[in-house]
Amino acid sequence: MISLKVLGVIDSCFREKFATPRQPHLAPASEARLRLHADFIPEQSLKGLEQFSHVWLLFHFHLNTNKRFLSTIHPPRLKGKTIGVFASRSPHRPSPIGLTLVRLVKIEGDTLFFSGIDLIDGTPILDIKPYIPGSDYAPGASTGWTQALAARDFEVVFSKAALEDFTRLGKEAEKLKRLIFDVLQHDPRNPRDRSQMKSGKMLEAYLHDYRVIFQIQGAAAIVEKIERVESGP
Amino acid sequence: MISLKVLGVIDSCFREKFATPRQPHLAPASEARLRLHADFIPEQSLKGLEQFSHVWLLFHFHLNTNKRFLSTIHPPRLKGKTIGVFASRSPHRPSPIGLTLVRLVKIEGDTLFFSGIDLIDGTPILDIKPYIPGSDYAPGASTGWTQALAARDFEVVFSKAALEDFTRLGKEAEKLKRLIFDVLQHDPRNPRDRSQMKSGKMLEAYLHDYRVIFQIQGAAAIVEKIERVESGP
Repeated sequence: MISLKVLGVIDSCFREKFATPRQPHLAPASEARLRLHADFIPEQSLKGLEQFSHVWLLFHFHLNTNKRFLSTIHPPRLKGKTIGVFASRSPHRPSPIGLTLVRLVKIEGDTLFFSGIDLIDGTPILDIKPYIPGSDYAPGASTGWTQALAARDFEVVFSKAALEDFTRLGKEAEKLKRLIFDVLQHDPRNPRDRSQMKSGKMLEAYLHDYRVIFQIQGAAAIVEKIERVESGP
Repeated sequence: MISLKVLGVIDSCFREKFATPRQPHLAPASEARLRLHADFIPEQSLKGLEQFSHVWLLFHFHLNTNKRFLSTIHPPRLKGKTIGVFASRSPHRPSPIGLTLVRLVKIEGDTLFFSGIDLIDGTPILDIKPYIPGSDYAPGASTGWTQALAARDFEVVFSKAALEDFTRLGKEAEKLKRLIFDVLQHDPRNPRDRSQMKSGKMLEAYLHDYRVIFQIQGAAAIVEKIERVESGP
């Protein structure tokens, strides 16, 4: 029996599965924080980590709902083609542990600040490891079916009303705008969810403390409205 | 409670902790195999993985003996200096999960063949994930204290007796010679174990089905003898 410890829980700009990027590099403007539980003596156990620009986070895929093992998955990018679960980074795996490479912005006391993340708020972190280029980088590695992963899907367009909403947000506006851009240029919809896929359907994404209302029209993601919300979705 | 599954157990050229490299890229000539348990339907779950040249293995640090949490460690490379456990890849972590990037040589049915590994024979594998350069590579990442990690420690010298042993091994000789070279050029000794550190002390490394007898003399690792063994150390 392998006993795992939760080091702490992620405080992330992504509030729900919808609109959380599929990979961390897709949203460089995203941000998260992790407060290390006092049991793990942060003032000692984090010593020297600030010298690294990037870290691996191992985390629990805590929102999995599948009860039984599924040997294949349908990545949204492959439009219906199936691949083996071990040829994917799908959350639905026998050992539900995720692996993500994030930028370590700074450490303040017991709290780590990250950017370029793909983690949902509330994700339990099981381990933090430094990214070591010598052993974690494979020059010339082949990309399998993932080549098309970073391709941009949409132009991101802000409506007049959305631009007015930004002027009311003050200094947070620029940061949020970049994040919305990161998230919407890669289609956040699930192609297997028909209701999301209707052209012109109004959709909502929760980012930081904002509800972002947008629609997909042809080759564009049009942001219609940005509202501050007191609590998540 | 997070439930982990063991996908299979590694069959590795490294038979014990001693002489197992600290990172996988240090021993490109090393080899291992993993047979995926039938529960995980290999003919489906591995589909598409053969298109990737490199994979991540998540594994259980099953040889850990520490009972309580230690917040700092002493990496052999730092000669007595301590760093936080989360600034290291030490096996002694709150969640004892290892992460290693290996070359996927081929897949035959339910069996995966790897090279460039740092896993001990018998290591339980918890997950296999494809290496995706777009999200797993951080260009220009800083290396923290690990810069000196790949530095070569020793010239590897084969004695006349060892070279005679090789001639008796036939076609396996060249492969084994490369592996011995990989392993001994990076000091395999534990600087905190005084008995190992005496100059001229005869030491043994078990690689594949061979016992390799060597000694460290100044700037050289001298291979004295290679013997076939029926079982491990």
